[in-house]
Amino acid sequence: MRWSHTLIPTLKEVPADAEVPSHRLMLRAGLVRQVMAGAYTYLPLGWRAVQKAAAIVREEMEAAGAAELHFPAMSPIELWERSGRREAFGNVLLNFAFPRGDRKVHVALGPTHEEPITDLIKQSVSSYKQLPLTLFQIQTKFRNEERPRFGVLRTSEFLMKDAYSFGTDVEQLNASYDAMYAAYCRIFERCGIPYLAVEAESGPIGGDASHEFMIPAENGEDAVVHCEASGYAANLERAETGRKPPKIEVPANAPVAVTVDTPGVTTIEAVCELLGVAPEQTLKTLLYTADAGTDGEKTVAVLVRGDHEANEGKIRRAVGAKTLALADEATVQRVTGAPVGFAGPVGLTGVTLLADHDAVTVQPAVVGANAADKHTKGVCCGRDWTVETTHDLRDARAGDPDPKSGGPMTLVRGIEVGHVFKLGTKYSDALGAEFLGEDQKRRSIVMGCYGIGINRIVAGAIETSHDDRGIIWPKGIAPYQCHVIPLDVQDAEVMSLAEQFHDELQAAGVDCLLDDRKERPGVKFADADLIGLPTRITIGKRGLKDGVVEVKRRTDAEAETLAPDAAVARVRALLQD
Amino acid sequence: MRWSHTLIPTLKEVPADAEVPSHRLMLRAGLVRQVMAGAYTYLPLGWRAVQKAAAIVREEMEAAGAAELHFPAMSPIELWERSGRREAFGNVLLNFAFPRGDRKVHVALGPTHEEPITDLIKQSVSSYKQLPLTLFQIQTKFRNEERPRFGVLRTSEFLMKDAYSFGTDVEQLNASYDAMYAAYCRIFERCGIPYLAVEAESGPIGGDASHEFMIPAENGEDAVVHCEASGYAANLERAETGRKPPKIEVPANAPVAVTVDTPGVTTIEAVCELLGVAPEQTLKTLLYTADAGTDGEKTVAVLVRGDHEANEGKIRRAVGAKTLALADEATVQRVTGAPVGFAGPVGLTGVTLLADHDAVTVQPAVVGANAADKHTKGVCCGRDWTVETTHDLRDARAGDPDPKSGGPMTLVRGIEVGHVFKLGTKYSDALGAEFLGEDQKRRSIVMGCYGIGINRIVAGAIETSHDDRGIIWPKGIAPYQCHVIPLDVQDAEVMSLAEQFHDELQAAGVDCLLDDRKERPGVKFADADLIGLPTRITIGKRGLKDGVVEVKRRTDAEAETLAPDAAVARVRALLQD
Repeated sequence: MRWSHTLIPTLKEVPADAEVPSHRLMLRAGLVRQVMAGAYTYLPLGWRAVQKAAAIVREEMEAAGAAELHFPAMSPIELWERSGRREAFGNVLLNFAFPRGDRKVHVALGPTHEEPITDLIKQSVSSYKQLPLTLFQIQTKFRNEERPRFGVLRTSEFLMKDAYSFGTDVEQLNASYDAMYAAYCRIFERCGIPYLAVEAESGPIGGDASHEFMIPAENGEDAVVHCEASGYAANLERAETGRKPPKIEVPANAPVAVTVDTPGVTTIEAVCELLGVAPEQTLKTLLYTADAGTDGEKTVAVLVRGDHEANEGKIRRAVGAKTLALADEATVQRVTGAPVGFAGPVGLTGVTLLADHDAVTVQPAVVGANAADKHTKGVCCGRDWTVETTHDLRDARAGDPDPKSGGPMTLVRGIEVGHVFKLGTKYSDALGAEFLGEDQKRRSIVMGCYGIGINRIVAGAIETSHDDRGIIWPKGIAPYQCHVIPLDVQDAEVMSLAEQFHDELQAAGVDCLLDDRKERPGVKFADADLIGLPTRITIGKRGLKDGVVEVKRRTDAEAETLAPDAAVARVRALLQD
Repeated sequence: MRWSHTLIPTLKEVPADAEVPSHRLMLRAGLVRQVMAGAYTYLPLGWRAVQKAAAIVREEMEAAGAAELHFPAMSPIELWERSGRREAFGNVLLNFAFPRGDRKVHVALGPTHEEPITDLIKQSVSSYKQLPLTLFQIQTKFRNEERPRFGVLRTSEFLMKDAYSFGTDVEQLNASYDAMYAAYCRIFERCGIPYLAVEAESGPIGGDASHEFMIPAENGEDAVVHCEASGYAANLERAETGRKPPKIEVPANAPVAVTVDTPGVTTIEAVCELLGVAPEQTLKTLLYTADAGTDGEKTVAVLVRGDHEANEGKIRRAVGAKTLALADEATVQRVTGAPVGFAGPVGLTGVTLLADHDAVTVQPAVVGANAADKHTKGVCCGRDWTVETTHDLRDARAGDPDPKSGGPMTLVRGIEVGHVFKLGTKYSDALGAEFLGEDQKRRSIVMGCYGIGINRIVAGAIETSHDDRGIIWPKGIAPYQCHVIPLDVQDAEVMSLAEQFHDELQAAGVDCLLDDRKERPGVKFADADLIGLPTRITIGKRGLKDGVVEVKRRTDAEAETLAPDAAVARVRALLQD
């Protein structure tokens, strides 16, 4: 492709409102332009990178035995009401009504496609003989992002690969899940981006097992803990702390517990300030209602160290409950005899009491006194209150021991580029997608779902691979593999050699960009560094007099000079590396 | 691909609500399923055909020097207000507001992208040095179709290739237009669909020259006139009739004109019934206002034969006006002295009088009397009213002489699959997209736009290529090139040979579908005919005993038997044809 036949509007200035390197560089290198907040046009160079990433995704999905289809973006709002996700998504679900004849048609623009595909499978699959099956699409998704940011990393419209597996049982689900997990690893490797496969909660999408694929990046929105030694990685919601139940010991010199007035002081920060203690010398007592509205409804009191964050998923699993939510004010008042903010473990009855491993090591501790405007100091577990055992009930954080190796974990920030979920029968139950088993019994189809953000692969690659001059494309998704730069475009010999290189490389399957602009060498070199293609050939009048052209990689400090007829082979060799 | 790894839910029954063959076959062969009125999911087989068509379009666009980009579907409604198309599109433009923080964001879902791309070019192009430039995308478009019908031929969401050219002047526009026109011819040839390039009005999209590409098809929504001898083809709005100005002669035995009472009779049909004459013995006198609201505003009276349809585009050009619309009732009353329905040429003053070539040959004629509830019989041109010359002012129809060869034209129905337009400066004027010329003057960029309906290529191919057993895919867009059918899937020798054929063909670049279902031969053959892949290899236990397998094309009545090791080469040879 000739530069003059495409649109690469590079910018010298750094755009003022772009916060992260990928956003700045995508604007400066002419990969994208904003149409409105949260909506970007991919210009030819950016779109080529997206298409290269999409092609890798498509190839690996097919190699993993998945078949591609394509849903419309629009689907009837009723589908989303039946699954309960119209309410769950809230404002995020873009939906609207439009007139058709004298009726109104109300549609949602799909933020993901569980509902339409479950409905399709319900119509098309009836027997266990048709299962297992994995289907995918590469399609534009829509979400109302309240705060679009970070350029193309968080937008209201984005290209997503979404795949869905359908099986007869958990074994088929696990096999499909493992195949997708392995395909994801190959995809990110071929795209040339670093990644972590991170254990994750399944979140509002439902189900019971999932992994996120993250690109480690300073400006990433997500935080995970990671142990390089064992390879364990998990997001903060999911990560185990690696703590074991400690021995509960009352210190020999422990003071007697004393209740003090703390009027209006309902937060750990305020308690610490008033009593002159550190947060890690206090305990939070949180009250939850488990399995609300069922026969098994109960109130649970959870103790975590004052500087720790209680983790609802872990608490729910420790209780063995299906649902868990913070108790309402009336319940807190009834159970503790005090308003919210003064709960404590001493003398607390009528509740299931759970303590985090670290909670029982705060000896003595400051706790709520189960009385309005009062806290108790000098409280010891094993003396003033007791538990039989302790649990992992809090978010992990840097320094916690890795549950596998026991070594300390580090905190890593990252960009989520993919997610694999075991959905189970959440959607097939809700929408009635059943199959007839070999035993002639009808059962719900067991589903998984698997997403990749294609735009995020591109932005993530730039976020992790650039220098102060511009992008450094990984070969797998570079818009072109080689940049051919004739310095003197009005010199017939220079141009003819440039065209020859371009054509020979193209014929060898190496995508080439030929900078045929009548610009100064400095401008061309600066743009070449900015758009960052993996290799470059420079042809100048002066060099040709000496019988040489220059070849360099984007990452090389110096170009090598070589005879023109060796240039194409050299570029091909550099790209093979 | 194995049948069991993909989703091809063929149907035995003909769907009741599908009107046209392509719709019936796309449902029966498991290519599509309806999600809601006007929205279809492409299942794997259908989506492969769409992708093959899209790949051909992409290759030919790039070969024609166009660069691909990608706009978001959403754009700010303000853009469409500035161009005036929010009003022009009316309900067809899907648009809605959604909350973001405490604001509302109002967007349109692009039915086409002139506005966003003109805005992009305004930001990115400033000099004649950056022109000409042609950009394209292959993208989902949205239109509120009031009456979605004919399956995927008319839907609210569809895949479109839209290209836009930008030039400094009409010469650059013409060169871009011609390159796109030639690319379109190659695209439709490679897709294997018959097509006509049809002269067309540019319609509400604006501009001054355009061609439609049509697939001739009985059930097509559009009608065109066509002369096979000369190749001339044009849609009814645009087609010239090939008539010349006739000599105006008053017949020797012409009766005297007589005005008669026709109370409440305001249509040609009613006049004919009351007076016992045929429509071709009457004249319609239509009043138009040209260039309303300008200094040059004037009233135009147009005479066409009673059974002909006046053509506003032709009238506008004959008058030399920029705009033309039927005159309002007040104007008709003022000019004719009568309400609408009684206008006639006799004694009509204060207007520009234009007559169609055929109008002056109705001698004598029944015309309106310019008086309420009265018509005049026996009116002759050249005696009772006169014109200096005549014009082509009506829609063409079957039997009209071809303007090129003079031979009679036939009426052809068709499906529009593509459209090329010379837009001129309509959008660049409205949105301020200018460039600085070599002469340092600022001028509006001269634009063209070029669309192809990718889904329509697929549906059109099926509409024109099928038999009573199913689809007959053209090779260019067939979902797979070869269908490998093992008859006895539990026989190891049969299956191993089938897999070997599949793998060898795939390795040779021939996409293959392997029907590994445990089904009766009759079911497999019926499905093979229904999904209609170009070639088929059948492997059975019985044949292998005799050392043969069967190869046939979808279009062959009989299969040929040949040795297994000759089968792959034979299929490849058949596909080369």
